[in-house]
Parts: sequence; C-alpha cells; structure tokens
Amino acid sequence: MQFELTSEYLDKLRDAIDDKDAAFLNAQLHELYAPDIAEIINQLRDSEAAYIYELLDDETAPNVLLELDDDMRERLLATFSSKQIAEQLDNMDSDDAADVISELPQNIQEEVLSHIEDLEQASDIAELINYQEGTAGSLMAKELVSVYGFETVNACIEEIRRQTDNVDVMYAVYVVDNNERLIGMLSLKKLIISHPLARIEEIQDPDIQYVKTSTTSEEVAEIMQKYDLVVLPVVDQFGRLVGRITIDDVVDVIRETAEENIQRMSGLSDDVDSNDDLWRLSRARIPWLLVGMCGGIVGSRIIGTYEQQIKIHPEMAYFIPLIGAMGGNVGVQSSAIIVQGLANNTL
Amino acid sequence: MQFELTSEYLDKLRDAIDDKDAAFLNAQLHELYAPDIAEIINQLRDSEAAYIYELLDDETAPNVLLELDDDMRERLLATFSSKQIAEQLDNMDSDDAADVISELPQNIQEEVLSHIEDLEQASDIAELINYQEGTAGSLMAKELVSVYGFETVNACIEEIRRQTDNVDVMYAVYVVDNNERLIGMLSLKKLIISHPLARIEEIQDPDIQYVKTSTTSEEVAEIMQKYDLVVLPVVDQFGRLVGRITIDDVVDVIRETAEENIQRMSGLSDDVDSNDDLWRLSRARIPWLLVGMCGGIVGSRIIGTYEQQIKIHPEMAYFIPLIGAMGGNVGVQSSAIIVQGLANNTL
Repeated sequence: MQFELTSEYLDKLRDAIDDKDAAFLNAQLHELYAPDIAEIINQLRDSEAAYIYELLDDETAPNVLLELDDDMRERLLATFSSKQIAEQLDNMDSDDAADVISELPQNIQEEVLSHIEDLEQASDIAELINYQEGTAGSLMAKELVSVYGFETVNACIEEIRRQTDNVDVMYAVYVVDNNERLIGMLSLKKLIISHPLARIEEIQDPDIQYVKTSTTSEEVAEIMQKYDLVVLPVVDQFGRLVGRITIDDVVDVIRETAEENIQRMSGLSDDVDSNDDLWRLSRARIPWLLVGMCGGIVGSRIIGTYEQQIKIHPEMAYFIPLIGAMGGNVGVQSSAIIVQGLANNTL
Repeated sequence: MQFELTSEYLDKLRDAIDDKDAAFLNAQLHELYAPDIAEIINQLRDSEAAYIYELLDDETAPNVLLELDDDMRERLLATFSSKQIAEQLDNMDSDDAADVISELPQNIQEEVLSHIEDLEQASDIAELINYQEGTAGSLMAKELVSVYGFETVNACIEEIRRQTDNVDVMYAVYVVDNNERLIGMLSLKKLIISHPLARIEEIQDPDIQYVKTSTTSEEVAEIMQKYDLVVLPVVDQFGRLVGRITIDDVVDVIRETAEENIQRMSGLSDDVDSNDDLWRLSRARIPWLLVGMCGGIVGSRIIGTYEQQIKIHPEMAYFIPLIGAMGGNVGVQSSAIIVQGLANNTL
C-alpha cells in the first residue's frame, strides 16, 4: 500500500530523465502522491530535480514543493524567477505559502509578493509572515469558512459553496457576529442533519476552544492534544476570527520538539542530521564537547593533588572510570525522568 | 482560555467534597471540559475521586474516565461492579471502550461484556480487543459512516442521518461496493456542494490511502503524517472496510514513541515518571546501570594490569576520566544522529 522508494526505481527514473523521456515520466508521476514525488526529487541532482519539477501539473507542483527537504527546496527556488515562485505560491494554502516565502531573502520576498495575481492571497501571505515564529499566528492559515449567526442552514450551505473554492479541507464552519467576532462553531455533520430553515445561532455550539495569535506553538499543541481537536480557530486581540490551525501542522510541531529534545539531551547544540556536511556537524557537536573537556581538565587537576597517594596505592586509579560512569549514568536517567515530568506538566 | 489547575481551586473543591456540597460541585463541573475534570480527579484521594465521578452526567463521565491517569482509572474501576463498568463502556467510542476493557483482568472482561446493553457495541468491543497491541486493528474504531456507490447524494444524506447516532465525529463518508469492499471516499464538503441527485460513484474520490488491520501503529503514524491525513480507513485481508483510525489516537502514538525513545536513550528499561513508586523506578533504572557497572569492572581489571607503570607515572591516572568522558560524549552524540536518521528513514 505504502510507496517505497527503491534504488532500482530511482535508477529507472534517472535513465528516463537522461533520455528526456517525458511520456514515461509523466505516466510514472501521475501514479504518485505529492509526498512520494518529493521523496524522489530529494534524491536527485539539481538539474534532474528541475526537469522533473517542470513536468508536474499546476495542482501537484506546489504540494511537491512543500514536501521537499529544506535545502533541496532552497536550491530549486534559486533557479526560479520571482514570477515563477509567485505562481507556485498562488496555488498554496496561505500558511504554506507564508512558510515558503519566509525562507527567501528579504528583497526577493517583496518582489515575489508583488507578482502574486490573487490580491487576497498576497495580502494574506503578507499578514502571516509578520507573525513571530513559534506563535499561533505563524502556524495558522487564513482559509476558513465563516457564517453569520443570523443566517439559516440553507443560506449557510450557499455561503459554503461560494467560499469553498479557497478552502481545500474543511472540518467545521465558524460562526461570527456582526463585528466578525467568533461566537461559536458548527460541525459539518450538524449542518447536514439539521433542518434547512433552522437558524445557525440555534444549532451552533457556542462552547468552543480557541487561541490568540500570540499563543505559543507549544501551547497550541498542548490544547489540541488535550481536547483531541482537529482544527482550532485563532482570534486577534479583539476576539475577531483571523485564522485556523489544523492538526497536521501541529503534528509537525510535536515531532520537531521531540527530535530537538533528543538532540539537546545528547549534547548537540544545533538541528543536524547525518547527511549534513562536516562543518555543520562539527559546529553542532563541538560546544558541549568543549564544556565536557573543561570539566575533565578540572577533574584531572583535582586527581593531580593526590599524586603521592596514587604512587603508594595505584589500585585506587582502577576504579576512577567505574565511579565516574556510574555517577554519569544515574544523572542522565534522573534528568530524563525530571525533564519528561516538566514537559508533561506532571511535576 | 486554557484551564489551569491551581492548588487554591483544588482546596476549594476538596472542602466542598468534605461538606458533600453537591450543588456547588455540580455548578463547577458543568463549567469544565472532560480533560480538565480528569486533571482534577487525578489529584484527589480515591474516596474523593469516586464522589466527584458519581456527580458527572452520563455523557461526561465516560470521557472523564478515558482521560484519567492509568492507575487512577484502575483504582476507580475497581470500586465499580461489572454492570456499572458496562454502563460506562456503552457510551464510549468502540476503540476507547476496548482500551479500557483490555486493562481489566480476563475474567472481569467477559462479565463486563455480557452486561453491555447495546449488542452491536458489545460485539464491536469483543472484536477490537482481539487485535494485537501495536497494530492498526488495536487503534481503530468501528464507528464510521459508509454508503454504497450506487446511491445518490440525497439517499446518502438520509443514510448519514440514520447512522450518525453512533458517530460523534465524522470527517468523511466511505464508499463500499456490494461486498462491503472499500472503493473510495467522499468528503463532507463534496457532499454538501454536490447536486442532490448525483450518484456517489460519480463524485467519490477513488484514490485513497488505507491500511490493513495488521499494519503496525508506527506505520500508521508515518502514513498519516506523510500524507497529512485526519482519518484513515482500515480494511481486513479481503479488502472489506472494518474501521477507521483518527489522528488524535495517532498523536498519542507519536508522543509516546518520542518519550520512549528519550527514556531508552538515557538507559531506562521501563516507562516511568517521577510520581511512580520507588520499586517501579528502581526496576526501570537498575538493568542498564548493572550493564554499565560490569563494563566499569572490566575497565578496572584492564587498568589493573598497568599497576607498575601507574606507580612510576601516577600523572597518567589524572587523564583517565577526561578520556573516558570525551569518548562517551562523542559516542552519545553520534548515536543520537544515527538513531534519528533511522527513525526518519533518511539513512
């Protein structure tokens, strides 16, 4: 069921790229989902990647771009003009587009924004890149369906038909008052099973969870996990509905936080993986090794003051590594338990 | 916005429990969500917990039960008769009910099952507890809405109205053929915006992700993350639709796996937290400490063979801890990078 990238398959694709066999490649790409295509492109050389990317249709290409590794995406975008980048962003959800554009240099950002045809999309993206990294504002997307409380179910369904062009995935309809302030929500299920002439106010659920744009990502992740939410509305400081956060973005936050914790615990000061270059890997590893070395040197000075005793009883030296290792192991275990307690708020 | 449990608030509730002030407690509990009530009960003594739980209404009580810490739930259920437990399970989703019942002793499981009034629910639970822990079968719930491909949108909406009693949260409708085999799905959005007389087959999306009951939880988590899914259908070995897995259960798998990794890396052989008793904590910590100690003793025997040299040059002993620590630190960093590479399939 799940796609598995084999090296034979990759070689076959590479040969087809060398032969510029667009028909074969198109047939292959059509069979695959965007994340799978991204997995393939990540393994290709830059020129091959650009060739494959060219072949993708307008709907698939932006999704593939999003799923690429950060450095492959950077290299691929570097070969694009501002106008070409703008075309890709036009077909993305606003939050994804904001993520991509915020990786570009400042001067190119403005150029790209000016080339986006859909003015609403451009202003949404411009708004989103202004929110600080690590807040609900930076996680949220602008695409949502909202209705006024005084409308009927029928009018609401009409409104959904109208607004739905912008919204790929929709789990709930938000209900706002005349001032665009969030007052409740309506599940699609409720909408389907309610009488067409019922007023939204009467069938909505006023008791909903929401966050402010300034709420931290960690708190958003915590709320969505605790209350088992799939989508969470975001309001500004006046309580007006400005966006929504979906669980898939939060799953990424949870995974990244866990990875970061493991790396921190093992004394890496930077986010690295085994494919990174030597310089980046060294830079991440050396700081805490230096701290460890300073500690070791202090330890050797202290042992040095017992020189005479060691001369007389050299067997004392045998147990230095044993005592050090046991102390270290117990310390690491205890810190793992305590750190986890802090992370889960059980402490 | 988010509920914060303060010790003053807890004291106030405790005083009310001592005074048997049901009116005040009911008013307080009514304001809170199930996960918040569970947070409170986790902090209470057993008799207080039982009193609070008694006060909850039929709809809230099962949700609170699910959110309790494992040991608190076990102690609370121990005070219940099989019939009372069965009543709680009757109001739960089948996957949650199966999780709760599988924690009970074998002989009580059958007694509880025999007391569940809704026979369909009882047989769903009995089916689910037979799937092996850690497979898609053990994660899935039986509650889903499925329609036949030959039906129309209108008939489908009628069917949803009929089936929807069992299904709390619904993100998609599954389409099956005459043999109950999964052939596609239909988003609620599509259903709302389609013509009432359109046939399901014509508007369904046949290109969907699914897993088998035997697929591992890790693979399920990987697929849902990779393809950004909120719900994933599960089929049996004949391709018949038997259940669905929602993202909130998978988020728990992701978090638990990450916690387990951190604990394994720090040499804990069991899942513990800082509130566990001394015996459990020791049992988790000692195995790898013993392994470390054996290593240390071997090390001391080796150093012992250089007794004469250490007597002559005791300054050699100064640097034993330094060399050992640096080697250990580099090793831990490397293993973190490699383990992460394996986990992400980037290696």
